[in-house]
Amino acid sequence: MAQKVRIALDAMGGDFGPPVVVPGAGISLTRHPDTEFILFGDSAAINRQLDAHPAIKAASKVVHTDVAITMEEKPSQALRRGRKTSSMWLALDAVRKGEADVAVSAGNTGALMAMSRFNLRMLPGIDRPAIACVWPTIRSESVVLDVGASIGGDARHLASLAIMGSAMARVLFDIERPTVGLLNIGVEEVKGVEEVKEAAELLRSMNLPELDFIGFVEGDGIGKGAADVIVTEGFSGNIALKTAEGTARQIAEYLRSAMSRTWRSKLGYLFAKSAFKALRDKMDPRKVNGGVFLGLNGVVIKSHGGTDAEGFASAVDVGYEMVRYDLLTKINQTLNRDGGSLTLMPTAQEAVS
Amino acid sequence: MAQKVRIALDAMGGDFGPPVVVPGAGISLTRHPDTEFILFGDSAAINRQLDAHPAIKAASKVVHTDVAITMEEKPSQALRRGRKTSSMWLALDAVRKGEADVAVSAGNTGALMAMSRFNLRMLPGIDRPAIACVWPTIRSESVVLDVGASIGGDARHLASLAIMGSAMARVLFDIERPTVGLLNIGVEEVKGVEEVKEAAELLRSMNLPELDFIGFVEGDGIGKGAADVIVTEGFSGNIALKTAEGTARQIAEYLRSAMSRTWRSKLGYLFAKSAFKALRDKMDPRKVNGGVFLGLNGVVIKSHGGTDAEGFASAVDVGYEMVRYDLLTKINQTLNRDGGSLTLMPTAQEAVS
Repeated sequence: MAQKVRIALDAMGGDFGPPVVVPGAGISLTRHPDTEFILFGDSAAINRQLDAHPAIKAASKVVHTDVAITMEEKPSQALRRGRKTSSMWLALDAVRKGEADVAVSAGNTGALMAMSRFNLRMLPGIDRPAIACVWPTIRSESVVLDVGASIGGDARHLASLAIMGSAMARVLFDIERPTVGLLNIGVEEVKGVEEVKEAAELLRSMNLPELDFIGFVEGDGIGKGAADVIVTEGFSGNIALKTAEGTARQIAEYLRSAMSRTWRSKLGYLFAKSAFKALRDKMDPRKVNGGVFLGLNGVVIKSHGGTDAEGFASAVDVGYEMVRYDLLTKINQTLNRDGGSLTLMPTAQEAVS
Repeated sequence: MAQKVRIALDAMGGDFGPPVVVPGAGISLTRHPDTEFILFGDSAAINRQLDAHPAIKAASKVVHTDVAITMEEKPSQALRRGRKTSSMWLALDAVRKGEADVAVSAGNTGALMAMSRFNLRMLPGIDRPAIACVWPTIRSESVVLDVGASIGGDARHLASLAIMGSAMARVLFDIERPTVGLLNIGVEEVKGVEEVKEAAELLRSMNLPELDFIGFVEGDGIGKGAADVIVTEGFSGNIALKTAEGTARQIAEYLRSAMSRTWRSKLGYLFAKSAFKALRDKMDPRKVNGGVFLGLNGVVIKSHGGTDAEGFASAVDVGYEMVRYDLLTKINQTLNRDGGSLTLMPTAQEAVS
């Protein structure tokens, strides 16, 4: 059997800490028995959970620290207070030192991003990090990035997102050459989307064998599965993601109220209960938990802070797959290919002149 | 009885032209009998429809033109080819000349925006136009703008959107002092959203009696109805709108497939049919058809190009309400109030220094 996947867990991250992190890791372990964990945090609290979950205890090592980053701390505060000492930092440090293959945290996003950049540094050729998520679509699933790591960005930044996102799609969906679309709006001759247009020209001119650039996709194309990878800068990506989540919750609420209005609809609900359960599962945000930080010298997964053990397990699963199918190597392959390297890439200005 | 609302219709706009525009106007007329129409376009095609709809014929005047803007034309082409002659231009021109109170078109958005700016000009104090839409929420409805007229924009532009959007909310929802939120992302200390932060400071410092600024709202706050008015620049606003539409269609598709999977779910569907119909009505994009162009010396409504008569009627309804409840006067009141005027407003730079 191949080497185990070693996962560093920030046991104190998120709204609940060890009572979610430990059972969550346990659920993922049943799906991927070739995993071992290093848990960073308050060893008393962690061991209480491990004692209740012997299977995961056997696959885990605990490293104690008193310092935990709170959900409210600003990135700069977190760095000042928790550098070298916090459970979040130590989980990332295990990746840097090669003691773990991936770090997973449900902690404060800004702090985790700042610590990841500070500790792991950016990949050569990448200036700014990104957060990628897996978005369920009518067709199947797509990788959408950046959903909130960096705001704005020129054509070169958008092209780097395309490269990293398509590497992630190759890993996750086992597609040789994922299709990539640039998120844009359908209004022509409008000022301000120059960088998106330039990125399109750049991606066309690079003509990378690892990805199939298909052009622009509008907001409603995401849910249709118009491309395997949807690329946009972090502000609009975050707005898109949160708006979709809000719309899903809104429709679930409409559905709930519609089904409880009359005795006929209540009866209909009873008959179709398993159909509604399937729908709920499909819309379950826990199933798509796990944002992947891209652009770093290491794999870092961010879980939602308020998730439960099932949701945290999804984030651990994502980390497992990124390592097992060698995300970083695939990104670096594209970055370092002759002519494809972003370090050698013309700047946006040159590319379109 | 008060004076009638005079609506200029671009009868050739949209994918279908008169066969949708005329019956659509007819549906709206039954809801607002104090309306009269001027229809611009191919008089033979229009009259064929009017002959089939005598009620609307009695309330309509037809002005013939051979020129119609296509859905594919670029704004600059449309202006060159259709200025002074096209049905779109003539409908706008009727508003400029005071012969109509509002123009409604299902034509090409970019062309309609370009012609509106060119013909009607911007309101004093407003530099750039916006498109506002009515967004259904769990609570009720909100005005969201800009959904695609201008990309990017400084704090002053965002403040002008807040003023125009709240005037629209006052007109539509009959709220004395609508709440206004600025769309933002929940990541702190991230570069690039300076203009959104500056706009927040500006709106706080202006402290307008016509609106209640409540701060930032994330993407999932729109569907929750976190504010009566949600303000953002046109790129992210368009992405949000289209993403929500895509998500709604995606969930409708999930629901359809879930309800047809087993005999139990099919039976459940039959029992709950009226509940599903209520849900479908609630999610019906035709009901929220009608983007309002704001910032112009006149009221212009854009209908979706592919809509049917029912959807076009919604757009005509929106135009009717904007005129009947005097949108332009309400916007101008706020713009020209002492201290509230955007022309007198400090620039973003001064406001935050």
